[in-house]
Amino acid sequence: MALLGIDLGGTKLGIAVFTEDGNLLHKEIIFLHSRKGPEIGKLIARQISGRLRADHREHPAIQSIGISVPGIFRSETGTVWAPNIDGWDDYPLLEEIKKLSAQIPVTISCDRTCYILGERWKGNAMGCQDAIFLAVGTGIGAGILINGIPLRGAHDIAGAIGWMALTETYREEYIECGCFEHYASGEGIAKLALETMKSDAGYSGELSRKEPASLTSADIFKALENEDTTAKQVIRLCIGFWGMAIANLISLFNPEKIILGGGVFGPALKFLPDIEKEVKRWAQPVSVLQCRIEGSVLGGDAGLYGAGYLALHNQTPLYNPQTH
Amino acid sequence: MALLGIDLGGTKLGIAVFTEDGNLLHKEIIFLHSRKGPEIGKLIARQISGRLRADHREHPAIQSIGISVPGIFRSETGTVWAPNIDGWDDYPLLEEIKKLSAQIPVTISCDRTCYILGERWKGNAMGCQDAIFLAVGTGIGAGILINGIPLRGAHDIAGAIGWMALTETYREEYIECGCFEHYASGEGIAKLALETMKSDAGYSGELSRKEPASLTSADIFKALENEDTTAKQVIRLCIGFWGMAIANLISLFNPEKIILGGGVFGPALKFLPDIEKEVKRWAQPVSVLQCRIEGSVLGGDAGLYGAGYLALHNQTPLYNPQTH
Repeated sequence: MALLGIDLGGTKLGIAVFTEDGNLLHKEIIFLHSRKGPEIGKLIARQISGRLRADHREHPAIQSIGISVPGIFRSETGTVWAPNIDGWDDYPLLEEIKKLSAQIPVTISCDRTCYILGERWKGNAMGCQDAIFLAVGTGIGAGILINGIPLRGAHDIAGAIGWMALTETYREEYIECGCFEHYASGEGIAKLALETMKSDAGYSGELSRKEPASLTSADIFKALENEDTTAKQVIRLCIGFWGMAIANLISLFNPEKIILGGGVFGPALKFLPDIEKEVKRWAQPVSVLQCRIEGSVLGGDAGLYGAGYLALHNQTPLYNPQTH
Repeated sequence: MALLGIDLGGTKLGIAVFTEDGNLLHKEIIFLHSRKGPEIGKLIARQISGRLRADHREHPAIQSIGISVPGIFRSETGTVWAPNIDGWDDYPLLEEIKKLSAQIPVTISCDRTCYILGERWKGNAMGCQDAIFLAVGTGIGAGILINGIPLRGAHDIAGAIGWMALTETYREEYIECGCFEHYASGEGIAKLALETMKSDAGYSGELSRKEPASLTSADIFKALENEDTTAKQVIRLCIGFWGMAIANLISLFNPEKIILGGGVFGPALKFLPDIEKEVKRWAQPVSVLQCRIEGSVLGGDAGLYGAGYLALHNQTPLYNPQTH
């Protein structure tokens, strides 16, 4: 018997077959290209059908399915809101998958929840009951595990840490994505670099020779290797914000571990000692000593492993009974 | 049969007997005066003994005990850290109470957890599974209910929201109690007023006629009624910080309700519309529409009711099984 994990991203679909012990038997990636709306739902359904019918020489029969989606899974309606997928404002994914087989259990969850579940199963949160995955990529989100159970909130949108307020003065620019994400996400880093260059007329470094509209956080990290002054200024600011946000997670949740992942961690992991210095200044002083901060070990596969873990727990509940 | 709720504060001990439906049968308050260390433990033990032996005409027999403590209850050791009680750095309260009767179950929890449990039982969080009590008094803490279970964290110190980082620049003054508490607690309000007066040489309002060392937040709220400029400036700043902190709770936890309590809410409740305006600017925009912000209805009795609720759940677990 085997578990099927599906990881839908904004640009590609990951499909993996796991054993119940979390060994990866099969993995494939399909790029979405110009597909949108129901075409993506149908692509997922076709891939699942194929795996359900797969020859037993390829892998054991699939007994359970987990799906990670890049947005919010609304558990009450079984629908998905995925801001980067055209036509997925309220897409009835659960219904579409349920049509394929009434026998096979299916669980769908948002990507940030799957990241921490993946690390819990086979990554850096193994053995942890209280751990948080801080995903810093194009956007920012947090997957939060409390006593072994993912935090969903009253309406499935807990962990929206990109909206964390971290500057005493509100600026209109925060309206799109929140204060923390405005500064310290992948997109934020690029925006900050543009702003910084604009306010420094004397700057003529390598970033000034890039086409402003196509500047990415990768360019800033590359410039940093050459001691670029704009890049240094931007990343110093981000280290401060990352430190504040991590400190706030520690003071509120008192977790055993915080795992940094997403495209930015990645290259920003080399600043972990500087980030930890910031965290120690701000956080509850006992709690901060009880929490380790580490990089993701699963990287781009965290969501896929998390989807596999959802599949594993379709039969065995995730919660760890505890009264108070 | 009846439940015994004990609420230990920094200056007084509350004792209450409840029915299982949460009806208050008996309540008394004992002031601690100069008592400290083991004397307070013995006082609690004596009060419990008295209630256990009470005549059945006074109230039905006690079947379960809950205790709220002003600090941290360390569940692994059964000891209490209470910063405002002399000699309670690691006080073995559970052992002391267990000596009285092996038959009667006892649960101890920190005050902020008891506040939200009290409101869940008989206050403003009735019917809520995901609700937060923001207690703003001398200090600041948050009692957080997730799917009906209080958030404890890995080592029992979750909810230390007084340490929330909310200003992009760190100041050495935060080292004592954290950034949010430094500004927006009862003590913070008094400190802010002193700082504000110091930087405004022209100020000659009513607050300047008070003895600086004895200035309290109550003085500032009173001055505000007379349109005092210093008081207005201080409270405006606090409204900003309260709004940011509440917004951060909403973005992270996606709760149904946030309840404002403690000595400051209280008088600061009249600014709820202004606080809500701040919250709406910062918080995740969908989550903020799903959360109501209200004052505590139990006020100073929230901890006592919470202790009663702990007693109620000594036999029936609090958790609501849910897999993800």
